[in-house]
Amino acid sequence: MHSNMDVVCREVGLRDGLQIIDTFFSTDEKINWMRQEAAAGISSIQACSFVPPKLLPQFRDAEQVAAAALEIDGLWVSALVPNLKGAENAAKAKVHEIGFVTSVSESHNMANVRKTTDQSLEEFKRIIELRDSLPEGQRFKLSSGLSTALGCTIEGRVSPKAVMALAEKFVAAGTDELVVADTVGYSGPTEVKNLVSDVVSNFGGEVDVMAHFHDTRGLGLANVFAALEAGCRMFDASLAGLGGCPYAPHATGNVVMEDMIFMLETAGLRTGVDLEKLVAVREIVARNLPNEPLHGMYVKAGPPKGFQQVSKLK
Amino acid sequence: MHSNMDVVCREVGLRDGLQIIDTFFSTDEKINWMRQEAAAGISSIQACSFVPPKLLPQFRDAEQVAAAALEIDGLWVSALVPNLKGAENAAKAKVHEIGFVTSVSESHNMANVRKTTDQSLEEFKRIIELRDSLPEGQRFKLSSGLSTALGCTIEGRVSPKAVMALAEKFVAAGTDELVVADTVGYSGPTEVKNLVSDVVSNFGGEVDVMAHFHDTRGLGLANVFAALEAGCRMFDASLAGLGGCPYAPHATGNVVMEDMIFMLETAGLRTGVDLEKLVAVREIVARNLPNEPLHGMYVKAGPPKGFQQVSKLK
Repeated sequence: MHSNMDVVCREVGLRDGLQIIDTFFSTDEKINWMRQEAAAGISSIQACSFVPPKLLPQFRDAEQVAAAALEIDGLWVSALVPNLKGAENAAKAKVHEIGFVTSVSESHNMANVRKTTDQSLEEFKRIIELRDSLPEGQRFKLSSGLSTALGCTIEGRVSPKAVMALAEKFVAAGTDELVVADTVGYSGPTEVKNLVSDVVSNFGGEVDVMAHFHDTRGLGLANVFAALEAGCRMFDASLAGLGGCPYAPHATGNVVMEDMIFMLETAGLRTGVDLEKLVAVREIVARNLPNEPLHGMYVKAGPPKGFQQVSKLK
Repeated sequence: MHSNMDVVCREVGLRDGLQIIDTFFSTDEKINWMRQEAAAGISSIQACSFVPPKLLPQFRDAEQVAAAALEIDGLWVSALVPNLKGAENAAKAKVHEIGFVTSVSESHNMANVRKTTDQSLEEFKRIIELRDSLPEGQRFKLSSGLSTALGCTIEGRVSPKAVMALAEKFVAAGTDELVVADTVGYSGPTEVKNLVSDVVSNFGGEVDVMAHFHDTRGLGLANVFAALEAGCRMFDASLAGLGGCPYAPHATGNVVMEDMIFMLETAGLRTGVDLEKLVAVREIVARNLPNEPLHGMYVKAGPPKGFQQVSKLK
C-alpha cells in the first residue's frame, strides 16, 4: 500500500466520473482539480484513461493530465487502459500505476471490450511483459480490476466462485493488485464482506486488494464499511459522487468521497485528508459541470459538534 | 422480537417523519398510509406520539390513528410518549408498545423534556408501575429509547460508558426494550458496531435491542449494517427517508426504509416486505406533502437484474 495512512482513498472522479460526461472538462481545470484535491490531502488519483480519443474524447488530453498529475508532490498517479496499446502510452507517460479491467461476467466483458475473459487475460499478460521489460526502478504497478464482481446488468448474479477463479488467474499472471468492483451498484454489504474476505484471505498476502463501489442503490458506504471489516484498506470514490449511471438519471455513481472520508475518520482511521479543504474542491466541479448533480450528505450537514478528524490530531 | 421474520423493520415516518412537519397530514391519509404499508408487508409501525396537541398539533389525532392501526391485521403498533400522562393515554388506546425516550446527554434531555436523566428515569418508573398494574394479558411492551447515544448537538461526543450506565438503569427498572438511537446522525459504523455490540452482549439476554439511525451525514445504512453485525435485528426507518433535520435542509432524516429493506434482503434476511409494493406507497406521502423532498436510491435505480427478494421465495 503506497501510503503511510491507515487507508488509501483514491479519487476516480477524473476517470470514472468524467467518463460518461460529454461536456469536455478542460485540461487546465482537470489539473486544477487534481492540485486542489492533493492539497486537501488526497494521496492517490486515477487521473485519466488511455483510450482512443475518438472513442472517449473526454480523455484526449490523457498525456497532459498524467504529466501534470505526476508533477504534484507526493501524489500517486494511476491511469486506466483498455489494452496493451493504452498501457504502452500510459507507460510512456510514466504513471505510477496502470489499471486494466476485466469483467467477471463473460457477456459484460464482450459488450465492454469485445473480448472473452480469456482473451482479456492474454492481453493482460502482454501488459505484464511490458512491465517486466522495464528496468526495475521504472516499472509501473499493475492493477487488475474485477468488474461486475458483485453483479452484472446482462447476466444478473455473478458467482463468487467465478470471481475467485478469475482473480487467481490474474495473480498467477503476476498482477500487483486486485480491485473488487461492484461496477453497477448491485450488491449489499453482506455479499461484499463475504467476497472481499475471500479475496483478502486468498490473495492479500501476495497482492494489494482494493474495493470499488457505486452508490446506485444507496449502499455504497455500507459496502465500503463491509470491505473495511473484511480487511480491505484501499477504496475508490469520487468527489461529489460524480459518475452517475446513465440508466438511473438521479442515482449517484461512485461513492461520495467526502462522506467516505467522514465515515473512515469516525472509525478512527487516518485518511490524511482535510475534510474542510476537500469540500471546497467541489466548487471546481460545480463550475465546470453546472448541469451535473453534485451528491454528498456531509457537505449539507457539516461536521458534528466537537468532531475532530484523527488525521488532524498531532 | 414480535415477528417470525429475520429482522423487524419498524416504520417511524408517521411519528419521527411527521414530527417536524407543520402541514397536517390528514387522519384518513395517515390511516391509508399505514394500511398500504402493512399490505406491503411492514409488520411494525410507530403510529403516533401521545403529546399535548398544543405542543405538536400534527399528533392531535393520535387516538384515532392508534385505533385504526390496531385494526390492521397483524400490525404491531407502538406510540411514543414524553411522560406518564402520555403513557396513560397510549395505554387507554391499547397500543402494543409504548416508547419512552431519554437523552443520554443531560443537556439534551433538559432541552428536550426539561428533566434531568434521573428525573426521566423516575417518570419511566411510574410508567413501569402503570404497565404492571394492568392485567397480565393487557400489558403493553415498554421500550426505552437512549437518545443521543452516539452524539449530541449540545454536548458533542457522548461516552459509551454513559450510554451503558443509563441502559443499565432502564433494564434494572424493568424495561422490555432498549433503543440505541443516533438521534442527530453523528456517528459512523465503527462506533455503532462497538456500542451496539456492548448493548447486545450486556442486555440482549434480558431485553430486545433496537437501533434507530438518521442519515444526516450519509451513514444511515452503513450504521444499520454495523448494528446488524453487532447482533441487532430490529431497526427503525421511514418511507422515503421522511424526517429531515430542520438544521440541514436537504439532509434526509431517518434511514430510507426502501433502501434498508433492499440491503437486508441482499443479505439473505427475510424482512417480510414486498419492495415493489412498498415503493408504491411513496405516492401517498408525495400527494400529501408535495413540498417535502422524498429520498431513496432504490426507487430510482430499480431492482438489479435477476434480483429476488428472499422474502418472496417459497
